[in-house]
Amino acid sequence: MAKKENQFVEAITPMEDDFAQWYTDVITKTDLVDYAPIKGFMVIKPYGFALWEKIRDYADGLFKETGHKNVYFPLLIPESLLNKEAEHVEGFAPEVAWVTQGGNKVLEERLAVRPTSETIICTMYAKWLNSYRQLPFLYNQWNSVVRWEKSTRPFLRTSEFLWQEGHTIHETEQEAIDETLQQLATYKKVAEDLMAIPVIDGKKSESEKFAGASDTYTIEAMMHDGKALQSGTSHFLGQHFTKAFDITFSDRDGNLAHPYHTSWGISTRLIGGLIMVHSDNRGLVLPPKMAPTQVIIIPIAANKGGVMEVVDKVAADLKAKGITVEVDDRSNYSPGYKFNDAEMKGIPVRLEIGPKDIEKNQALAFRRDELTKSEMSLDTVADQVSTLLDDIQKNLFEKAKKYRDERIYPAYNMDEFVDIIENKKGFAKVMWKDNAENEAKIKELTGATIRVIPFAQEDLGDKCFYTGEKADHMVIFAKAY
Amino acid sequence: MAKKENQFVEAITPMEDDFAQWYTDVITKTDLVDYAPIKGFMVIKPYGFALWEKIRDYADGLFKETGHKNVYFPLLIPESLLNKEAEHVEGFAPEVAWVTQGGNKVLEERLAVRPTSETIICTMYAKWLNSYRQLPFLYNQWNSVVRWEKSTRPFLRTSEFLWQEGHTIHETEQEAIDETLQQLATYKKVAEDLMAIPVIDGKKSESEKFAGASDTYTIEAMMHDGKALQSGTSHFLGQHFTKAFDITFSDRDGNLAHPYHTSWGISTRLIGGLIMVHSDNRGLVLPPKMAPTQVIIIPIAANKGGVMEVVDKVAADLKAKGITVEVDDRSNYSPGYKFNDAEMKGIPVRLEIGPKDIEKNQALAFRRDELTKSEMSLDTVADQVSTLLDDIQKNLFEKAKKYRDERIYPAYNMDEFVDIIENKKGFAKVMWKDNAENEAKIKELTGATIRVIPFAQEDLGDKCFYTGEKADHMVIFAKAY
Repeated sequence: MAKKENQFVEAITPMEDDFAQWYTDVITKTDLVDYAPIKGFMVIKPYGFALWEKIRDYADGLFKETGHKNVYFPLLIPESLLNKEAEHVEGFAPEVAWVTQGGNKVLEERLAVRPTSETIICTMYAKWLNSYRQLPFLYNQWNSVVRWEKSTRPFLRTSEFLWQEGHTIHETEQEAIDETLQQLATYKKVAEDLMAIPVIDGKKSESEKFAGASDTYTIEAMMHDGKALQSGTSHFLGQHFTKAFDITFSDRDGNLAHPYHTSWGISTRLIGGLIMVHSDNRGLVLPPKMAPTQVIIIPIAANKGGVMEVVDKVAADLKAKGITVEVDDRSNYSPGYKFNDAEMKGIPVRLEIGPKDIEKNQALAFRRDELTKSEMSLDTVADQVSTLLDDIQKNLFEKAKKYRDERIYPAYNMDEFVDIIENKKGFAKVMWKDNAENEAKIKELTGATIRVIPFAQEDLGDKCFYTGEKADHMVIFAKAY
Repeated sequence: MAKKENQFVEAITPMEDDFAQWYTDVITKTDLVDYAPIKGFMVIKPYGFALWEKIRDYADGLFKETGHKNVYFPLLIPESLLNKEAEHVEGFAPEVAWVTQGGNKVLEERLAVRPTSETIICTMYAKWLNSYRQLPFLYNQWNSVVRWEKSTRPFLRTSEFLWQEGHTIHETEQEAIDETLQQLATYKKVAEDLMAIPVIDGKKSESEKFAGASDTYTIEAMMHDGKALQSGTSHFLGQHFTKAFDITFSDRDGNLAHPYHTSWGISTRLIGGLIMVHSDNRGLVLPPKMAPTQVIIIPIAANKGGVMEVVDKVAADLKAKGITVEVDDRSNYSPGYKFNDAEMKGIPVRLEIGPKDIEKNQALAFRRDELTKSEMSLDTVADQVSTLLDDIQKNLFEKAKKYRDERIYPAYNMDEFVDIIENKKGFAKVMWKDNAENEAKIKELTGATIRVIPFAQEDLGDKCFYTGEKADHMVIFAKAY
């Protein structure tokens, strides 16, 4: 039995020793994902896909509550459409996978496997829109996109990933801006409320915005290693695409006008963020709202009379409260093996129930986030577990927020800045005078980029930390995934 | 106002005049779908996608109840993998779209945009499987596939379509056969229980089975024009792929064995079937379980005091019963226009509520399936509508079944057979001696193919209608989409 345990619950490299290897160990040893036979592509395994379903279902619910409807646009986009918006094609062309042959024939025009769908969607919107009465179009699709990446890592950056892309057009500029910000707030809710990942919301700098956008808004999270993960973006696209694609409508005065346009997306990279924010050297740590299994019950001496009856009763009580519960009744593994296995999978609560517990009318509850145990009366275990799950969800958010807040440092000069990025491994908050060249220089020197111009501004003085000029705003610099 | 009505609620070509045009009118004028700018590709619009969501959510629930889990495998498949199973590649190669360039470089190996995923999935299963203890693998994915089609029609046959593909492997042959049949039964439930489409379940002939299958099972439905629609297939793949891809495991005796394999799929073509089974010359007819909006309330003289209060109260009562309800309170359209619009969209029940109805403490209920009206007391309207929706669901199934059963004729010779296919426009049930050459001859002569060898066999004699030899079984021939 001991041999079997070693065979299956394999050790995870400690994150302090090698953070990248720790991440790889966690995602592969907990069966979230595997490498596909094509370089840069991933296979999302059942446990990983269950996490994506949680994100998708939660976000989709919020989209629908705010009036959005799902649609499906083709996977393949003719090159001529991709070329219509100049900045857009410049941004995406180098990453495109091209279909050049179909049904044994060479195609007259290359077709892009969609890297994003603005161009095909705008083509159809131009056909559909006539009058202001039809506006807004509030459409979204869940699909996969392909961007040929040189350096990849599962969930974080892969040549194909799953995402949703919302594409809306509006009668007025203000409505489109409101939509852009509303969707960013939705993403913040997905990150914070569902995934317990605290994020900084705000605007991207000119250099970091989406190819073809007027403004890009973002939510940025801090990973365990102090690097940032862009976790969702919402773009105000102005009339760039609606003019390029000649989308027009009769406005309230009977004049022909171009609508205002937004797009917004979150992707499977959020799963990478989930891991690098909450997990530890024992494996996954899942917030209860994300956990496919919230509670695992491990019977001790299951063959003893009465144990399985109690286990089944507790499982039924938990289910009746809407808690997802699993009983690990595998007979060919020891309780110790099962404990390790459940911890590695990040199951928020483990209940141990054996003959001695039953004698004392109790169950032992282990919480994955704090690695602590407590006794629960069998009479009230369902209520207590329910409260515990809420507490774990909250605790994980608070822990992550504390971790992050302790690693955001102000910098007033380049020495302090480099120290934060290189040694302290955190986010640098600095006063900044907008300047794309200076941004590029800092990136070259330190690898850090402006992650976000936070909505929540702080006054750190009025001078740009880099040039000494009058600053435009406070920005957050960090290295990023 | 009259002009506006003509502008928007456009006439649908009667199906008796031109069935193909009727179908095109229904799907485009009710805003289910549009033609993409690439030949053979479609855009699924919000109302069409809402139908797909109904199918997906219902089927996905059944898959999960029977222990299946969702996964995601890459969109692109290296040519060398596609080539591993000989019959499979022969079947699919002519329809493949090939990616030959990625990220500005010509690829060393062509990548197929998946036409189906057996080959990539088997490659990974070979990597994952070690022991019989891990079996079965019961995985499914919802995605899109591309098959380069020469002649296309939205939903029915398009170069890209949405579907799910289940892929399972099992320890024993019997388990895999049981799985194949269980999934076929699930599809029958989706068709009959959810979509009110009666289907004939059974096996495909050798000529009609999936490329690489041992046996293909199918559900076949009859359309209004008497043609068949293959509505879902479940394949017992034996060890064809598991041997070709060298998937092995240690069996209970410690020997190396190949697992047995199934795959099964339903697609957006079911939406085409939904239309051609239930809809009429006024537009869509949706079974209540499929309808994104089950009840529409149209206020008459909405500006009269008290009308909207009653309308809102009735809407709230219906919602409380779990009925999806919409109030058409658009002020710029007449009730007559709204009636047409709701009928065209196939909304199962329309409630009309005006000052005169309120005086009589009633609402007028119109049922879309029978085009009849009845009065309902405002005190009991929610219960009555709930019963009516159940009745409509049942009625649509019974009507479709009657329509179909009346158009299945036995044939004992070729004259009768041709008469059924050409003039009576129905399904021919015949006794048949298996023979692929004869099947091909009949197809060339009449366009009809063996749709299914029904599980429910009838005894029409013992001689093959075509050759006079001793028959193997009764089969159903029909023209098909």
